[in-house]
Amino acid sequence: MKSNNELAVLRHSAAHLLAQAVTELFPNTLLTIGPATEDGFFYDFLPSTNFKEEDLPIISRRMHEIVARNLPMTHYQMDKAQARELYKNNPFKLELIDQIPGDTVGIAQQGDFYDLCRGGHVDSTGQLGHFKLWAISGSYWRGNRENQALQRISGTAFFTAKELADYEKLKEEAALYDHRRLGKQMDLFSFHEEGVGFPFFHPKGQRILNVLRNYLQKLLDAQDYQEIATPTMLSDHLWQQSGHYQHYKNNMYFCTIDEKQYAIKPMNCPGAILVYKDRPHSYKELPLRLSEFGHVHRHELSGVLHGLLRVRAFTQDDAHIFCTPDQLESELKKLIELTYQILNRFNFTQISVALSTKPENALGSNELWEQATNSLKTSLQEAGIAFTINEGEGAFYGPKIEFRIKDSMGREWQVSTIQVDFFLPENFDLIYVASGGARQRPVMIHRAIYGSYERFLAILIEHFKGHFPFWLAPVQVKLLTITDAQKAYAQELALKLKQHGLRVEQDNSSDPLSGQIKTAQLEKIPWMIVIGQKEMDQGTITLRYANGKQEFGLSYEQFLEKAHHANNA
Amino acid sequence: MKSNNELAVLRHSAAHLLAQAVTELFPNTLLTIGPATEDGFFYDFLPSTNFKEEDLPIISRRMHEIVARNLPMTHYQMDKAQARELYKNNPFKLELIDQIPGDTVGIAQQGDFYDLCRGGHVDSTGQLGHFKLWAISGSYWRGNRENQALQRISGTAFFTAKELADYEKLKEEAALYDHRRLGKQMDLFSFHEEGVGFPFFHPKGQRILNVLRNYLQKLLDAQDYQEIATPTMLSDHLWQQSGHYQHYKNNMYFCTIDEKQYAIKPMNCPGAILVYKDRPHSYKELPLRLSEFGHVHRHELSGVLHGLLRVRAFTQDDAHIFCTPDQLESELKKLIELTYQILNRFNFTQISVALSTKPENALGSNELWEQATNSLKTSLQEAGIAFTINEGEGAFYGPKIEFRIKDSMGREWQVSTIQVDFFLPENFDLIYVASGGARQRPVMIHRAIYGSYERFLAILIEHFKGHFPFWLAPVQVKLLTITDAQKAYAQELALKLKQHGLRVEQDNSSDPLSGQIKTAQLEKIPWMIVIGQKEMDQGTITLRYANGKQEFGLSYEQFLEKAHHANNA
Repeated sequence: MKSNNELAVLRHSAAHLLAQAVTELFPNTLLTIGPATEDGFFYDFLPSTNFKEEDLPIISRRMHEIVARNLPMTHYQMDKAQARELYKNNPFKLELIDQIPGDTVGIAQQGDFYDLCRGGHVDSTGQLGHFKLWAISGSYWRGNRENQALQRISGTAFFTAKELADYEKLKEEAALYDHRRLGKQMDLFSFHEEGVGFPFFHPKGQRILNVLRNYLQKLLDAQDYQEIATPTMLSDHLWQQSGHYQHYKNNMYFCTIDEKQYAIKPMNCPGAILVYKDRPHSYKELPLRLSEFGHVHRHELSGVLHGLLRVRAFTQDDAHIFCTPDQLESELKKLIELTYQILNRFNFTQISVALSTKPENALGSNELWEQATNSLKTSLQEAGIAFTINEGEGAFYGPKIEFRIKDSMGREWQVSTIQVDFFLPENFDLIYVASGGARQRPVMIHRAIYGSYERFLAILIEHFKGHFPFWLAPVQVKLLTITDAQKAYAQELALKLKQHGLRVEQDNSSDPLSGQIKTAQLEKIPWMIVIGQKEMDQGTITLRYANGKQEFGLSYEQFLEKAHHANNA
Repeated sequence: MKSNNELAVLRHSAAHLLAQAVTELFPNTLLTIGPATEDGFFYDFLPSTNFKEEDLPIISRRMHEIVARNLPMTHYQMDKAQARELYKNNPFKLELIDQIPGDTVGIAQQGDFYDLCRGGHVDSTGQLGHFKLWAISGSYWRGNRENQALQRISGTAFFTAKELADYEKLKEEAALYDHRRLGKQMDLFSFHEEGVGFPFFHPKGQRILNVLRNYLQKLLDAQDYQEIATPTMLSDHLWQQSGHYQHYKNNMYFCTIDEKQYAIKPMNCPGAILVYKDRPHSYKELPLRLSEFGHVHRHELSGVLHGLLRVRAFTQDDAHIFCTPDQLESELKKLIELTYQILNRFNFTQISVALSTKPENALGSNELWEQATNSLKTSLQEAGIAFTINEGEGAFYGPKIEFRIKDSMGREWQVSTIQVDFFLPENFDLIYVASGGARQRPVMIHRAIYGSYERFLAILIEHFKGHFPFWLAPVQVKLLTITDAQKAYAQELALKLKQHGLRVEQDNSSDPLSGQIKTAQLEKIPWMIVIGQKEMDQGTITLRYANGKQEFGLSYEQFLEKAHHANNA
């Protein structure tokens, strides 16, 4: 397969192809912009009458015709005056022309179709045959809902028919294992109109979250993390001091208490800082690793909410590490190692790393930013980890490393973040007493490995297609009986297994065994124990795996040993 | 000691004694009311010039003089017209007279002092010698800050000098072990002006909360509780349906999202109900015990906030049990048993139980209330538990049982609650499918055993006076070394013990052993391990208990065995 960059060129070219087809079919349509996106392209139009769903196949056919014409795609510069004349009836293009620096603008041309464009196309329309149009949707000029409403046609394109077919198959597969669908089917969580964007965790979903939490907790205990808990609401005054009020206000919810304004926390850092500041700290206590199971609220537009992947309330596996500048690199290395250890535990082995640098609306001096950015770079380099750089995409208070994982369907997800922060310690005048007695400024690291428990769970559901490995499964073992005569015995056995911490259920139906097996398979339960008269008489266990493989005549101890092993596998 | 009722009569009489002394000393003072309280009495005055702290001993001396006069205390009825004439210059008393039903009002008299009063006094001022005035504070007429500001003088009184002395000793002791003081000293939690009434848990406080949670979790797992998690904010619409909006609005915080009003949850029940309603339920699933570690916010006036005992945000060990009417009594019995088991675990053995019945602003019919109240009565009676009845003190949606514990200083605290609710299932049209296929209405039980984790922790801190038993202590074992030569060995040992789940710290100072022991004692750590050259060479452990008792030559395994035993003791 070609590089991402070449694919973007192909897809942007396909957007021009789309625009040409639309212009030919609906000549009174105004063109705006048509970029490549992460997995395809779109073009935003202002049609004279709205496009309908039925127009999509017509447009698609016309695009194939233009492909067959194999028109050369060219690009040239044009004087702005001439371009303004060309687009005198298109206020969108005129606005774009005004914003392009210099005296000329680029024009892309294929046959008698032309479009204002920076450039970067394939050689001819004949190369664009492997595309697929997806949908017509509403959009706004420049994505701002206060501007002119437009119509967006979106789709994707690939270099070969096989690539397109593979992609479409993956999309179908992903739809099949959509976490919202599996979440409902497996009774893991729900959403309700009484709390838009706020997940409700059902017992089985909560069990998975608890396993995730306990697994992490053990690793953190071993690294001397100290857990804290800070309030959900804190006064505006604090968010002003932390800079969240100035930089993040649009994503925050507010509440009034005793005529004072409080914000519902979107992040846990100011709370952790108040805990740090509550008493003096000696250098002997550093690095001080304060972890918080932090439940935060962040506003998202209702249109972008998406199951557990994009919510308005979520729980971070947050931590704030306070250390001396000298300890920074070794802490970062520890964190990078921990991140890999945890992500690997879920069979995420393809991990890509990006370093995000100083954004436009940053706090603090260039010098501090450089120092922080360099520490992150060195730590990654010394760990032998390749990384890309996202210029200008850091948070307003510091540079960060982001970890993206590739799931079982080849899709990428951003999860873990490690962020260096020299600014909040400065803002809040954080101090530690150095060995000589001098008052020194600690460095702060913000980090989350799962990121958000909710989002990580969504990714896991899709990654495992609902078939959680034994150690994560909400129900690990289901007890089936051949006849009702074994039900009481099964119940006793279930109780014993539960006492060993196993997550066990019993089939209470009077379905025949084949029906019970089918139910357990639909519930995606990894192990079944099948109990007949023989098992009851001999006190043995017949273990049936989800894949149908069976083991007979296990003793109770052998079974526990196997379960214990599977829990740690 | 006399009964609570006799004590209340004594204390109300002492309030009259106080009022007489104030009237003699400051004749222009207007009297309002002077009731007995749980642990004393107060009188609210409107003085012509404000009382000062220095006035207290003067008033107290005058009270003793009046005691010495041994004036008979009498009570008689007076025509309202005559009383209005008597109080023509006192608008407070005139307001009270207007509100008393009938044509006459009661007047208490001792010497030439008289006061409007319902009655209930001791025979003469000579019986009131064992009192103590505490403080002058601000108050408002009828406790409403929009009314006239008054001055309150408060104090207490007992029948004998010994009772008063014992009580004062207890107060001093309680002040010494005030959880706010110990919480700071032991670095368990803090409060900050950035979040008035919202606790910040420090690592050691959070560790105790986690032990409390894990202990409870195991018991709940064994009883097939299913944990859920529901959102912090839910729409007003839902709170209107649940009745909270109408009955509890003044204690709730609100927030606006997308132009809709949301309430920050003061209770977890509506969320649990939405989870229940998300799919159909068969009778086979009942009783369905949904537990929630529910973080709620409830407004309290800033004046009544009191450390962790009275906060504005707390976490309930909440559960909602959905069962058939037939299962109600057996569920209640299970709950009563579980409550005793848990409270006993903390050495709370004196538990008093009260049943609260239908309040004035109740939802639902008398019939439903009677049915619910009778189930609670029967369950208690069959468990052989004596209980009192608090008429009219149930929640608006159902009757409840409340459990009060007596702590090590003899003080009582209300903790656990079990509440039957026939109304929310009705309001929300909750259904289960009975064995015949009919749609039936489940009963709901709300229950919390700790009540609030925050408040329970406050009670535990004071109850144990900071000396937590081994299984609860935030640091269970501290490793001390005789010289720095054993530090590395101690660190290794600490790591090994941590891997066994023990909460271990090491003294990193170079203080002499005696100093290290003193520090550990101040930190109230139950066990110390003392490591010298001998222990290092022989691989043995010297264990020192907080009380100074020591055990020598323990093997590592013997020590672990002891710790394991203490964790379960």
